[in-house]
Amino acid sequence: MTREPGVLPRPGAQGTSFDDATAVAPRRTEESVFDAVLDGGWAVGAGINGGLVAAVVARALSAELGRSGHRDPLALSAYFLSPCRPGPATVRTETVRAGRGLSTGAAVLSQPGEDGAAVERLRVLASYGDLGALTDEVRTTATPPPMPGPDECVPADQAPATFLDRAPVIRRLDLRLDPATVGWAVGQPSGVGTIRGWFRLPDRREPDPLLLVFAADALPPTPFDLGIFGWVPTVELTVHVRARPVAGWLRVSHTTRNLAGGFLEEDAEIWDEAGRLVAQSRQLARAPGAAHTYTPPA
Amino acid sequence: MTREPGVLPRPGAQGTSFDDATAVAPRRTEESVFDAVLDGGWAVGAGINGGLVAAVVARALSAELGRSGHRDPLALSAYFLSPCRPGPATVRTETVRAGRGLSTGAAVLSQPGEDGAAVERLRVLASYGDLGALTDEVRTTATPPPMPGPDECVPADQAPATFLDRAPVIRRLDLRLDPATVGWAVGQPSGVGTIRGWFRLPDRREPDPLLLVFAADALPPTPFDLGIFGWVPTVELTVHVRARPVAGWLRVSHTTRNLAGGFLEEDAEIWDEAGRLVAQSRQLARAPGAAHTYTPPA
Repeated sequence: MTREPGVLPRPGAQGTSFDDATAVAPRRTEESVFDAVLDGGWAVGAGINGGLVAAVVARALSAELGRSGHRDPLALSAYFLSPCRPGPATVRTETVRAGRGLSTGAAVLSQPGEDGAAVERLRVLASYGDLGALTDEVRTTATPPPMPGPDECVPADQAPATFLDRAPVIRRLDLRLDPATVGWAVGQPSGVGTIRGWFRLPDRREPDPLLLVFAADALPPTPFDLGIFGWVPTVELTVHVRARPVAGWLRVSHTTRNLAGGFLEEDAEIWDEAGRLVAQSRQLARAPGAAHTYTPPA
Repeated sequence: MTREPGVLPRPGAQGTSFDDATAVAPRRTEESVFDAVLDGGWAVGAGINGGLVAAVVARALSAELGRSGHRDPLALSAYFLSPCRPGPATVRTETVRAGRGLSTGAAVLSQPGEDGAAVERLRVLASYGDLGALTDEVRTTATPPPMPGPDECVPADQAPATFLDRAPVIRRLDLRLDPATVGWAVGQPSGVGTIRGWFRLPDRREPDPLLLVFAADALPPTPFDLGIFGWVPTVELTVHVRARPVAGWLRVSHTTRNLAGGFLEEDAEIWDEAGRLVAQSRQLARAPGAAHTYTPPA
């Protein structure tokens, strides 16, 4: 939601909700500028989870482009410049073009640096529309990946503390991983490069386009399934939101097929409970610096 | 190549080469600003081919970010605002962040509107690096699609004049389409949603990262293979360039799996003759307005 100007949730509150973690407050004094607070409970590796920060910007753009009647992201590309830290952030938005069916916007998210000057963290371009106004015609040929049901999948928050401590964001989710894609957690990566599972929020806040932007980057990194561990910072993330999801679980599948030259692409597909392919994304990320073996605790 | 300031090839020359069609001239008087001329010989539908215009911007960013030692695009996202017309264009670039291994830039391509004021055509974000400096480690699991050799494929410029007249860019290419993916041209679309073929330039100008940006958008639109014809304007195109291609043919495959709600995604993979997956891209495009039957000439 967009908050009243100046009103933001208390930072650092335990178990901050998704809406609180992505809240933006429009500045009274500067049009198209929004304030946010990035919450360390949504961190991974050396920074705040990229999809979460992209969702913060997506919410600000929703307010900006919503003035043209285009509140829903259809395509959003986020280029990550430096890791986000917990604390205040500013999102400056711009309406680049207000069209009939689509509007395009740009945004910059920055945070105060050590000397207080603004340091850019993300640059974003996005095209927004009204997902409710799209035609009903669906000729999707892609099909959801078969998975055991959520109760037969492995809750991600049962991962060892050594892993969770490096990815606090996992504790913010109700993420159940397909057993066929968690071998890496017990020293047996499958080598396929796919991780998939069921995704919802613990407070049962229903999915919407903003949650899809976050969910595209919310699973453990696919190199783990190749036996390659370490931090996988995102260079750029482009998400296509193709329909408003129905209520319930999201089925999320991430795959990498081109880990080479120190980089990898990671494709995500998100399906809702109606079997609709509601979002697709691809990110370019840096591969972990050196392959090393993950030793699960005894 | 970047031209000397003020020197651009003559517009409208028949059979303009790729380098001429994507030439940019840095302005002496304004740093980081480049002039170009968009050539109608590279048109498709109501505007200049999107990949070609993205390559013009990519060349300007190569000059701008090359000053930081990062001349090669690794990731480039182009958001298309309005169709480009033949004639002059201006590209304003910006170095957003000059890093050690990567630099990120932004660009705006505009053209004079009817009243002479600048009208924005594209907004671009991109991360550049030095593809020659990447590690040799390749763990790509994707494999090139099998295809008959180039001489057993169908030259695209043998398409009927009624098709070529709406896509002059095809005449600028040596594009040979896999017979398994050209049924749509004779009234028998396969329904799979894939078009693939061999790609090179008629003057045998060897492939490089800029050509890859163009090649990601240079095949007939995949909806044709679903029996859906008409113009398919790109909303956004994101290209990942993962390696410098070796000399020779490029193998290009485009696929759509999610045509729905009046939009489609189109994924492209480009392989070089060494069998390396040198580029991947995804675009979001508008589906043709109404499905209609293509009647090949008798």
